[in-house]
Amino acid sequence: MPEFRQNQATKEWVILAPERGLRPSDYKKERAKPERVSAYSESCPFCAGNEDQTEQAVLTLPASDGWRVRVVPNKYAALQPQLATTRTWVGSFLSAKGFGVAEVVIEHPQHNQTPALMELIEVTDVLRAYRERQIEISRNEKINLVTIFRNHGQQAGTSLEHPHSQIIATPIVPPHVRYPMEQAVLHYDKLGSCVYCDTVTEELRQGERIIIETENFAAFCPFAARSPFECRIYPRKHQASFMLVGDDDIIELADVLRTVLNKLYHGLNNPDYNYIIRSSPIGDEDTRHLHWYIVIIPIISIRAGFEIGSGIYINTVAPEEAARYLREIRFVS
Amino acid sequence: MPEFRQNQATKEWVILAPERGLRPSDYKKERAKPERVSAYSESCPFCAGNEDQTEQAVLTLPASDGWRVRVVPNKYAALQPQLATTRTWVGSFLSAKGFGVAEVVIEHPQHNQTPALMELIEVTDVLRAYRERQIEISRNEKINLVTIFRNHGQQAGTSLEHPHSQIIATPIVPPHVRYPMEQAVLHYDKLGSCVYCDTVTEELRQGERIIIETENFAAFCPFAARSPFECRIYPRKHQASFMLVGDDDIIELADVLRTVLNKLYHGLNNPDYNYIIRSSPIGDEDTRHLHWYIVIIPIISIRAGFEIGSGIYINTVAPEEAARYLREIRFVS
Repeated sequence: MPEFRQNQATKEWVILAPERGLRPSDYKKERAKPERVSAYSESCPFCAGNEDQTEQAVLTLPASDGWRVRVVPNKYAALQPQLATTRTWVGSFLSAKGFGVAEVVIEHPQHNQTPALMELIEVTDVLRAYRERQIEISRNEKINLVTIFRNHGQQAGTSLEHPHSQIIATPIVPPHVRYPMEQAVLHYDKLGSCVYCDTVTEELRQGERIIIETENFAAFCPFAARSPFECRIYPRKHQASFMLVGDDDIIELADVLRTVLNKLYHGLNNPDYNYIIRSSPIGDEDTRHLHWYIVIIPIISIRAGFEIGSGIYINTVAPEEAARYLREIRFVS
Repeated sequence: MPEFRQNQATKEWVILAPERGLRPSDYKKERAKPERVSAYSESCPFCAGNEDQTEQAVLTLPASDGWRVRVVPNKYAALQPQLATTRTWVGSFLSAKGFGVAEVVIEHPQHNQTPALMELIEVTDVLRAYRERQIEISRNEKINLVTIFRNHGQQAGTSLEHPHSQIIATPIVPPHVRYPMEQAVLHYDKLGSCVYCDTVTEELRQGERIIIETENFAAFCPFAARSPFECRIYPRKHQASFMLVGDDDIIELADVLRTVLNKLYHGLNNPDYNYIIRSSPIGDEDTRHLHWYIVIIPIISIRAGFEIGSGIYINTVAPEEAARYLREIRFVS
């Protein structure tokens, strides 16, 4: 029987309509895996040895024989840091110059790596690079929002195989971010608590959608998952900004992240996916009603006309089923 | 130089970042065209002659030798009309039974047709069927929103070739619809006018993004287009609900719609696309601040991590360029 479910943080609804007779394992498709590509590609601008094909690095985590992680300005940046933030009326329409920061995080020197299969220390390095760049970029007082994300595979929006993620920082905080903030304030004023803290507490209490639980983090397929196998990682303690993650916690987080990615890798055969770190706008780091988190979205279904038109997503895999399936997938590095 | 642009109705921003050296015609790809499939497919449940493969029609526009348009309940409905609208707390999470109406509009008896190539009367029939079903479904007092949409091609979310569109009616009006309504009220209270009326007036005044202008409709690539070749059709007169389109206007609208689809068909070589008719929630038909319209989204680019995370879309084709290109494409039936 189909069911509507509401995301308590955003108030958006989804429709849960499992396809008859399909089990989670039926979503495992034949897909290319990174071991089929080689560790070095001459034409890849991100491979160790080809550093001259990128802009100069803004952050390098050094290794004895080179580097572990490099962050470089995006050569094909959609936004440019040297522009002004001037807003202009074009008739009665509003525009602004494309000021912003766009960087690429090269996650590993080797071409055929992927976070799902990396060592814990390697994934930790990537998260440390994110955090350091977010802190540095946030010092620019014209920047108000830093979005960190990873596009994995062509269907997720990347044509580059080399493991990398991206950072885009904007002067604008759009309604897509503001509206959930307004809902979070309403929740805080009504119930005296952070809606995200309440969500992770309730997910842990109900338990059936939990994938992994550690001292400080919980990974789960959310109650109102918008698409099959959507996974989220929330800090269990209140924390509004990813910039505030401590040095011990970031190792624990890396372990949870790579475990979830590893389970998706084996359970769904290296699916294309996006992950995004959602974090408070700059200046709201200490607020009591916001909460950073990671959302991981395997590309299993297509957002079609109904989803675009109504914003209501139809999800064909119950998050309880997805979580149970992922819990049972053994971590294999 | 990249540029932010704001949609005045939703307040969402896009980034316009044209790819260097690419012209609109470079987005024309080799794609399958419907003339390559035959007019009848034995295995297609929507073909004339196979009526017993669908549920019983809720609307049939008859022809001397059969039918022109048939509307049938969706066999794989994500929502079911016989359920209650009961909402239930699951711990502190909210759910509701999957009550709703899901129908398929079979647009033509022939398998290898597509609205871009249909006769004017045939497209008019499809729009009339939409309108009649929306009026009928809206009589159910538990229904609050009717979403009419078309998924064209696999990347747009359909695997069925036979020309069809869908109607999904829900008891829920989600935030995705409510937020723009709130913005529209704010605009109305501030400026005393409908923001959508103001938008179409301004688009007509500026002119460079107009594709077609008729007495009662304007088709344009909007100032803040979220993706390449996004097209919109707005009624020029204030009208909140698609149910209110008059009999003469619906023919004019059909002509504008099929012309835009025809230009996309020839200009981009039959791209996959979604179109959606956005219309006021039920009961708000007479409101002075809402406006129905059609949005047509060719699937040219991928919504990746940045778009999902921030809600800011990066569009690589300026709507001025897209509109100029489409204006120059000659209608060929």
